[in-house]
Amino acid sequence: MIVRDLKDLKNTDRDVHDAQWTSVRMLLADDGMGFSFHITTLEAGSEHTFHYKNHFESVYCISGKGSITDLATGETHQIHPGVMYALNLHDKHTLRAEEELVMACCFNPPVTGKEVHQADGSYAAAD
Amino acid sequence: MIVRDLKDLKNTDRDVHDAQWTSVRMLLADDGMGFSFHITTLEAGSEHTFHYKNHFESVYCISGKGSITDLATGETHQIHPGVMYALNLHDKHTLRAEEELVMACCFNPPVTGKEVHQADGSYAAAD
Repeated sequence: MIVRDLKDLKNTDRDVHDAQWTSVRMLLADDGMGFSFHITTLEAGSEHTFHYKNHFESVYCISGKGSITDLATGETHQIHPGVMYALNLHDKHTLRAEEELVMACCFNPPVTGKEVHQADGSYAAAD
Repeated sequence: MIVRDLKDLKNTDRDVHDAQWTSVRMLLADDGMGFSFHITTLEAGSEHTFHYKNHFESVYCISGKGSITDLATGETHQIHPGVMYALNLHDKHTLRAEEELVMACCFNPPVTGKEVHQADGSYAAAD
């Protein structure tokens, strides 16, 4: 059994920062679960475009307020606690945080922790 | 893109009840993500023994207070918001809710939604 506390992972190599977001990797590929699990915080007022071409991701809103636009359809959905979106079509999307958003994210295949966002908003496939 | 709101799934066939717990299945096997994602609520004062022999499960505490005992080692871990446990060894465990616990759960392989807990605390493997 693996037991981890978010607050113990802050400021470790599992706490990844990028422009206006941070993501704490509670589970990564080498934990052997077949998925990775992250708690991601998006700064109030920030906007992000991502396109996970090589991963399925689901994102559940724990706290905050924002919206997501599906860039294929132009449709925008409101995000608040209890809302989940799942990128089952590897959907390219823009995420906006009106208030700070805290999100629980699952990735399949699991993220290794070494990925960086590429210019196209994706993470590269694992080797 | 799939977008679902927890409150819209209450009292639907995705809202599964058992003795002193309820689990809302935000994502199931037929959503094609390769994992399932549930928001599970355990009643204050309740105790549960589970043994997912056929699944890996990770559980992240959103709210509440409780503990988990690994029945192989006898070790007990406190649960509060920010704590995650992952049953990477299909660990048989007893979960106690001192206060109502709200947990975000990922299963691999994904739950179909038709499983029931068997006498041994497991879910059967999917056909």
